[in-house]
Amino acid sequence: MDPDLSPLDEYLDEADLDGYLVDADSSDSTQRYLSGFDAPDPFVTLYAPETTALLVSALEYGRANRQSRADQVSRLAEYDYRSLAAEHGPKAAKARVVADWLDDLGVAGVATPERFPLGPADRLRARDVAVEPETEDVVTEVRARKTSEEIEHVRAAQRANEAAMDAAAELLREAEIADGAGADGTDVLRYGGDVLTSERVREEIEVTLLRHGCALDETIVACGADAADPHDRGSGPLRPDEPIIVDIFPRSKETKYHADMTRTFVKGDPTDTLREWFELTHEALDAAHEAIEPGVTGAAVHDIVCDVYEDAGLPTLRSDPKSETGFIHSTGHGVGLDVHELPRLSPDGDELRPGHVVTVEPGLYDPDVGGVRIEDLVVVTEDGSENLTEQPIELRI
Amino acid sequence: MDPDLSPLDEYLDEADLDGYLVDADSSDSTQRYLSGFDAPDPFVTLYAPETTALLVSALEYGRANRQSRADQVSRLAEYDYRSLAAEHGPKAAKARVVADWLDDLGVAGVATPERFPLGPADRLRARDVAVEPETEDVVTEVRARKTSEEIEHVRAAQRANEAAMDAAAELLREAEIADGAGADGTDVLRYGGDVLTSERVREEIEVTLLRHGCALDETIVACGADAADPHDRGSGPLRPDEPIIVDIFPRSKETKYHADMTRTFVKGDPTDTLREWFELTHEALDAAHEAIEPGVTGAAVHDIVCDVYEDAGLPTLRSDPKSETGFIHSTGHGVGLDVHELPRLSPDGDELRPGHVVTVEPGLYDPDVGGVRIEDLVVVTEDGSENLTEQPIELRI
Repeated sequence: MDPDLSPLDEYLDEADLDGYLVDADSSDSTQRYLSGFDAPDPFVTLYAPETTALLVSALEYGRANRQSRADQVSRLAEYDYRSLAAEHGPKAAKARVVADWLDDLGVAGVATPERFPLGPADRLRARDVAVEPETEDVVTEVRARKTSEEIEHVRAAQRANEAAMDAAAELLREAEIADGAGADGTDVLRYGGDVLTSERVREEIEVTLLRHGCALDETIVACGADAADPHDRGSGPLRPDEPIIVDIFPRSKETKYHADMTRTFVKGDPTDTLREWFELTHEALDAAHEAIEPGVTGAAVHDIVCDVYEDAGLPTLRSDPKSETGFIHSTGHGVGLDVHELPRLSPDGDELRPGHVVTVEPGLYDPDVGGVRIEDLVVVTEDGSENLTEQPIELRI
Repeated sequence: MDPDLSPLDEYLDEADLDGYLVDADSSDSTQRYLSGFDAPDPFVTLYAPETTALLVSALEYGRANRQSRADQVSRLAEYDYRSLAAEHGPKAAKARVVADWLDDLGVAGVATPERFPLGPADRLRARDVAVEPETEDVVTEVRARKTSEEIEHVRAAQRANEAAMDAAAELLREAEIADGAGADGTDVLRYGGDVLTSERVREEIEVTLLRHGCALDETIVACGADAADPHDRGSGPLRPDEPIIVDIFPRSKETKYHADMTRTFVKGDPTDTLREWFELTHEALDAAHEAIEPGVTGAAVHDIVCDVYEDAGLPTLRSDPKSETGFIHSTGHGVGLDVHELPRLSPDGDELRPGHVVTVEPGLYDPDVGGVRIEDLVVVTEDGSENLTEQPIELRI
């Protein structure tokens, strides 16, 4: 994929810097995006308007030549790394090698990502290389606007995600309600002769994702009081009549792009409060979907969701920044090479633009009620948005 | 788990700094180790000899209080983050909040990891907080020496790893040799009615790992010429008479500790060169196992492996730093919360000490021959080492 990095070229020109330097392994999405290279240990990429250059170890040299998008690949041995390391230690040697390599590339000053490593930065500055972290999120903003190829990668990952959500729903659908059958006499769900647990559903989701070519980060299958904490992964027996939040955010093993989706299920009879919360959350979701179009800010979309909840008398972080119940997170986040990226549907969310891929995930939380969240993934189009999610939305399973 | 951080206390005392500051998410092992907290977005940890403090978002606040090892947890809202962000922007606001929080903790100067993020560091320095990346790998050295609890975590992950390697070996064992049955008329392996591919074996490995509670990084199933590149994951049909390198490095989902193991298989008849390479590599493995004990350096162990290969006439990076064939990587690396950590069995490998967990992975590579690697995982004991790996070593499957 050839990204459109003209905003970065403009930034470098305005800042009077020769290039953009990245020191990271490929789990860092800026590194992955600029180099096109997968490697488990940190390596160095110099992006300049006229060339992209990589500096790698002997081990990675052959593969970097074949697989990266760099115009040129150098290796540490070309700059005498081993003898420098023997004399000055590995960190100082690496700094000398990078400085010499930059010099060969005609680079005297670089911009870097906000999170460029401090030790290497200090050592380059000591060698008179200007090193300036750019704080305008230039590359993150570039990455936020997906090409049609990238959108198809995300769409494909969401299709795999739906197969996994279907597998989870199927377990819940097939499960039996077993009154008093829990270890402590509580009501539980049972499947295949055992108590049905969060862990069992999570395993089914993750195996399904694997069979559909996705790796996973942590999957959330949170029941009852666990569901009241938005980041609680959930554990232990699943129970009838309680909300079960299933939040899956897989990564395609081939393309590295993520998808993200949440559904909330109840097996049995939800309480009236839970029913109301579900309808309210579905209403907030629809209102957000309706609002998303180019030119609208993420902050405005988040405000619309807060309006729905506050109008119904529920607390939000907008009405009470220290609230621990109600709507206690943002409305959405970008999704791409990272599972959390720009844009943000939050109080500091900027203008949405075509190609932005963003979650819409209103939710309500209270240990006395449990939790509800419904999350779709959309792409902003020229005149509105397209929902990349086809999964049905219904509370009772 | 309560780590023994006295080396860090000593470092801070000698450097006349008040604490050690980390700004990262929990995929950063230093962050995970010091905070004991799992979170997908960056948060801030201050380790001081008398206290460990966390600074987190509203979303993580409840869970950080319950699950981290911190003595105190603060949240951004306590320092007025939202109004500061509205006035100064999120990055400057964060810097002010962190500076005020450090001030409340009586901290004027901090050491940080080598790879602390540059933007936040520059902003703290501009607010007169001393920020000094420590370059002696203090926390990485502490993490390298595992407690008996940690060794059991690694051992358990290696048991899961062996189940996965058995699953891979079983597919290869059950596969049939199908002469001329490849799409291009080449010989391939077949299993269950299809051509047996790298991807199919990888899927079996990864599903097995999941069922044993492990997540995975990228698994390597590399055949023939693919096996000649040590980091090539492998792809496409598996073939008879060619080496198939299977390298699996899973992470326990519960404990987050890794294991690591490689075996090389041939289905059919290996060439004489491959047989020789396998025996030589097994000999190098045994020599390295024999040598590992407290007081020996990683460099010395690596030299012993280079000796075995060079005595047999094969190139190593020691005899030719630019070689692209032969023994072209290090002998081993530490394994723990990271899949690559200290100590190193390499030219700059330091003294081994009890509690060190390290791979031993000699290998030979040449596109004309393929590749061979055999990798075990050992823990250094008081008087030698213990192999955490029980998997048999044999070439023909």
